[in-house]
Amino acid sequence: MRLVSVDIDGQERPGAVVAGPDGVDRVLDLSAITGSATLAQLLADDAALTAARAAVGRADSTVLPRLADVRLAPPVRPRTILCLGYNYEGHVEAGLSPETPPPYPNVFIKTANTIGGPRDLVVMPPAATDVDYEGEIAVVIGRVTRDVDEADAMAHVAGYTLFNDVSDRGWQNRASQWALGKSVDGFGPLGPWIVTTDEVPDLAGRLMEVERDGVVTVRASTDAMVYGVAFLVHYLSQIITLQPGDIISTGTPARSAQAQAVHVPLAHGETVTVRVTGLGELTTTFVRS
Amino acid sequence: MRLVSVDIDGQERPGAVVAGPDGVDRVLDLSAITGSATLAQLLADDAALTAARAAVGRADSTVLPRLADVRLAPPVRPRTILCLGYNYEGHVEAGLSPETPPPYPNVFIKTANTIGGPRDLVVMPPAATDVDYEGEIAVVIGRVTRDVDEADAMAHVAGYTLFNDVSDRGWQNRASQWALGKSVDGFGPLGPWIVTTDEVPDLAGRLMEVERDGVVTVRASTDAMVYGVAFLVHYLSQIITLQPGDIISTGTPARSAQAQAVHVPLAHGETVTVRVTGLGELTTTFVRS
Repeated sequence: MRLVSVDIDGQERPGAVVAGPDGVDRVLDLSAITGSATLAQLLADDAALTAARAAVGRADSTVLPRLADVRLAPPVRPRTILCLGYNYEGHVEAGLSPETPPPYPNVFIKTANTIGGPRDLVVMPPAATDVDYEGEIAVVIGRVTRDVDEADAMAHVAGYTLFNDVSDRGWQNRASQWALGKSVDGFGPLGPWIVTTDEVPDLAGRLMEVERDGVVTVRASTDAMVYGVAFLVHYLSQIITLQPGDIISTGTPARSAQAQAVHVPLAHGETVTVRVTGLGELTTTFVRS
Repeated sequence: MRLVSVDIDGQERPGAVVAGPDGVDRVLDLSAITGSATLAQLLADDAALTAARAAVGRADSTVLPRLADVRLAPPVRPRTILCLGYNYEGHVEAGLSPETPPPYPNVFIKTANTIGGPRDLVVMPPAATDVDYEGEIAVVIGRVTRDVDEADAMAHVAGYTLFNDVSDRGWQNRASQWALGKSVDGFGPLGPWIVTTDEVPDLAGRLMEVERDGVVTVRASTDAMVYGVAFLVHYLSQIITLQPGDIISTGTPARSAQAQAVHVPLAHGETVTVRVTGLGELTTTFVRS
């Protein structure tokens, strides 16, 4: 299933995307059918997921509102947002090669104020003068996860979504810790939907492309990921109890040589699209406040 | 006022500490008086604060329950926990001296799962083998704070409380980002109360002491703080909209030469006390799970 959060007059309700026979995506409201107030609650509830799946199977898409016409909220509002630095082979800043993988994942945190909906603008405040993007795949946690073995970890993953780990490089590099450069309000567009693990069980062999204003700056296979999903869930859960709706963003691949050669901060009106096979695409427009 | 959160059958309610004529601290329930469901809500509501102050003034402490007999929750449950690294002159790890202050604050994030009540045990999981403490003063935000000038910043501060920024040094030093070593479940005891800014308007000239198992390892004046409260609120609010109940922990002073000479991880049964003039003390017991 592709699951979304729909914002109806400020209230966020879980929904499923149903592709109509006309090829147009429409949205089925799942709140009454599943009794789940939020998508994170739905993800944590096996009976609700089963009910949702059955409802999607029998839905008459022609009577449903078009996905393009509803207001999409972030699919989840994570309490904890954990992100990987340098998790693709060839990420130039790390000086990594397949022969010398880092001994441990380099994990950083983004604060909850960063999360934005899939169609929200990213508003760059005056203090952020060196804004940059990173297209990533976010793992969405489906159940309370504490100290799980790697072999059992995937049962705790609800699905995957797309994430733009927006940074201000100026703030990021002011001190040893990147935290502030990563945590500007709205610097984490998420979505558009969560693809559940029954549809996409793992991330093997997927193509990620990132486009900036129509120019592809990243094209990489997820097979270049250094630390995989099951390991990361296991690793993190040794010390942090993950909650339904929490996300682990798996890092961005290296940019093309051309894009690496010049770094130009994002300017008012530019767009960035993150696209991954089977996971959809997330397009974000950046504006000055 | 000294404000607490009292846990009554799993529900957290705001309260005020009232010193009785017998010198015993007692607790006045403020939820009905102020209409505030939580202490964070109360802090954000000027009318509620005024009502609380009046109620404390007329309270008959003899009929109130003793503070020692109630279950204390963390005074607030911050959405965002921002912490300062190396914010006292002489902090040895930074190689700082008063002549060479760092150009910017070094800020890191702890995740929300770290917050513990003032009497909660810190349970060290098997994966955390190198656990260490840092006694700090936490600034508690009282209202929505976005892009405030330094001159206006103090109006957004509700008060101060004590914080033990517990770390696992092993996890902290596995990669460039400290995030995981700082974010172990429960590695952030907070409390016991918030002293409001009408009682403690600023942090000038306060003595901080930290004791480990009865041995004082830190004794420092808050005057050695590099970046002060008003500046920090201003600085952070340029990029992060702070919410009522969010905290900014102002960093730990350097340890005594003796304590610096040997680093021994905390063991089962050890206690750490953080004590600051006018802010009370926070004693935490560490145990193995």
